[in-house]
Amino acid sequence: MKIICKKNELIKGVNIALKAVSNKTTMPILECFLIRCENDTITFMANDMELGIETIVEGTIEEEGTIAVEARIFSEIVRRLPDNDITIQSENNQVIITCEKAKFNIGSRNIDEFPQLPSVDKKEKVSISQFSLKEIIKQTIFSVSDSDTNAMMTGELFEIRDNDFKVVSLDGHRISIRRIELKENYEHKKVIVPGKTLNDLTRIVGGDAEKNVDIYFSSNHLLFEFDQTKVVSRLIEGEYFKIEQMVSRDYQTKITVNKQVMLDCIDRATLLVKEGDKKPIVMYIDDEKMEMKMNTTVGAMDEIIEIEKEGKDIAIAFNPKFIIEALRVIDDETVDIYMMNPKAPCIIKNEEEEYIYLILPVNFSAVQ
Amino acid sequence: MKIICKKNELIKGVNIALKAVSNKTTMPILECFLIRCENDTITFMANDMELGIETIVEGTIEEEGTIAVEARIFSEIVRRLPDNDITIQSENNQVIITCEKAKFNIGSRNIDEFPQLPSVDKKEKVSISQFSLKEIIKQTIFSVSDSDTNAMMTGELFEIRDNDFKVVSLDGHRISIRRIELKENYEHKKVIVPGKTLNDLTRIVGGDAEKNVDIYFSSNHLLFEFDQTKVVSRLIEGEYFKIEQMVSRDYQTKITVNKQVMLDCIDRATLLVKEGDKKPIVMYIDDEKMEMKMNTTVGAMDEIIEIEKEGKDIAIAFNPKFIIEALRVIDDETVDIYMMNPKAPCIIKNEEEEYIYLILPVNFSAVQ
Repeated sequence: MKIICKKNELIKGVNIALKAVSNKTTMPILECFLIRCENDTITFMANDMELGIETIVEGTIEEEGTIAVEARIFSEIVRRLPDNDITIQSENNQVIITCEKAKFNIGSRNIDEFPQLPSVDKKEKVSISQFSLKEIIKQTIFSVSDSDTNAMMTGELFEIRDNDFKVVSLDGHRISIRRIELKENYEHKKVIVPGKTLNDLTRIVGGDAEKNVDIYFSSNHLLFEFDQTKVVSRLIEGEYFKIEQMVSRDYQTKITVNKQVMLDCIDRATLLVKEGDKKPIVMYIDDEKMEMKMNTTVGAMDEIIEIEKEGKDIAIAFNPKFIIEALRVIDDETVDIYMMNPKAPCIIKNEEEEYIYLILPVNFSAVQ
Repeated sequence: MKIICKKNELIKGVNIALKAVSNKTTMPILECFLIRCENDTITFMANDMELGIETIVEGTIEEEGTIAVEARIFSEIVRRLPDNDITIQSENNQVIITCEKAKFNIGSRNIDEFPQLPSVDKKEKVSISQFSLKEIIKQTIFSVSDSDTNAMMTGELFEIRDNDFKVVSLDGHRISIRRIELKENYEHKKVIVPGKTLNDLTRIVGGDAEKNVDIYFSSNHLLFEFDQTKVVSRLIEGEYFKIEQMVSRDYQTKITVNKQVMLDCIDRATLLVKEGDKKPIVMYIDDEKMEMKMNTTVGAMDEIIEIEKEGKDIAIAFNPKFIIEALRVIDDETVDIYMMNPKAPCIIKNEEEEYIYLILPVNFSAVQ
């Protein structure tokens, strides 16, 4: 095999494929790129068995062939070579990388060990803009559980019904729901995608509102196709939680508040919380104002912010992190928060229910 | 005590004084700022017993007084308050910080426990531009030893003779020497300043070429005065190493090389060195070219760079890190490197000897 690529083209491909390179594994082949050069196409592949990536790199093939090479050292070498043409060739189980007068020689691996990417039948494709996909993942991914005790909580629900695309995540303390309208109608689809995969995906997808990601569904895998890249993720098996039963639209108190003012206030209050400590932020809501209080061994904090209120007065307490994470991903200038009583979840949502964030309160009488 | 300061003025002062706040100590008072407000001057002080800082903060004193307050939590609170006037007042052993509608309440400490900053007799001041002081420290500090086995190696020699200011550091494998010309002549001075202090100093001094730092010398301390700030450092006791005896001007080979080309080449080669591994870079120097080689378990690297040579051919090996660190702080486009034989130190210096970097080679026959 012998190819010549521009440094910046190589770097683009390497940065994408690296996301599917295993970090800790007992199988060295999972730490490799497979570089396949045939039919005028140079393809970089990586596969950590959860996530598989295939991306095309621009360049000239002087001799066809396929090699497997340790991904991290390969990437580092490419990054530090001069900004010029880079030649990659294989010779006696070695990979030789040359650029100007610099020449590197690193070992290669047996390409037969490299696990094939799962094949996904391209029956029906769902198209969504790169921007929208990236946004909807960012706006929900934070409430995925990172504990393995319930596998389903480590993933996000992707559900498509007609032209409605809904993404849901929950971790036992809160639920995040986002929905957007697709340009076309589709058959009903419902899968659970690992959170880790989606995190990696947001770092690869460009975020262009004019460009699309095509998503293909199979029973065990999801295939994302965009630009010159394919990303295959395994799916999490099982029946997802019945969300609609958990979200009640009843309320006794509704407040409307400036999002940034509330966010800054809670953010300041968390300064007083030492790591690992579970101090709630307490909110005393009455007519036209909300008093926020935090009380810890470090000190006390107290701030009054203006609100509009409908319904009863209420005192209610929350884990400040949960409120912060929800408010951060809402773009609206003001938000509506609905509460029932100090023991029932609050709900932050807009009228069209494009977003619904449900957060359980903390037992308040017990903490004061 | 009651004062009102603009947020940005407070932050400026806090960021300076924080450098002398102790990180780990059994004495909680060393984790505090002393805020002294008297005679129309608000002074923030911190002292970790190695380094003491005093800086003046602009603001209005409504009631004179002095408080001691935990520095890190105070800084974090100030940073996250709205960008407006901040009021700080003491009340019943508490410090109350208010800004707009936010109010924080944190504990204060007994001001009598706070260790006074050492007083330095202001007999004679040495003036140097902020820019030059910052540069000369950066250009030498990397070869200070971080091991405590020899206290003198953890500091830098500051020597002034007439109008010549010389800074030296060494760690047993290399020596860095820089000198600059001062505007005036001074009495002979020779002290050893802790490397840690100098590192902190470079982060506080502004770097303006038009502004000066005034340095005052006492037998145990050094006082740096600039802008609204005083920094006092203790000195390391002892007689510094006799540097001149270690630096020989004899050579058998002299090469002239493009600094950036050589730096980039060695930088790339270190990719192949795993952490903790001690692989040298080997240089084969003959007429008009230098071949650089690195050979490790990860792979091999080989690069030829153009040089001008005077004297004998030579093959010599170095710890790549030492060469990199010296080349990085040299501003010249080309550098001259002088070598005697594969077992004697090489010297990188310019003709005027404004800089001299001496680096011991690695035993070369043993490594191949």
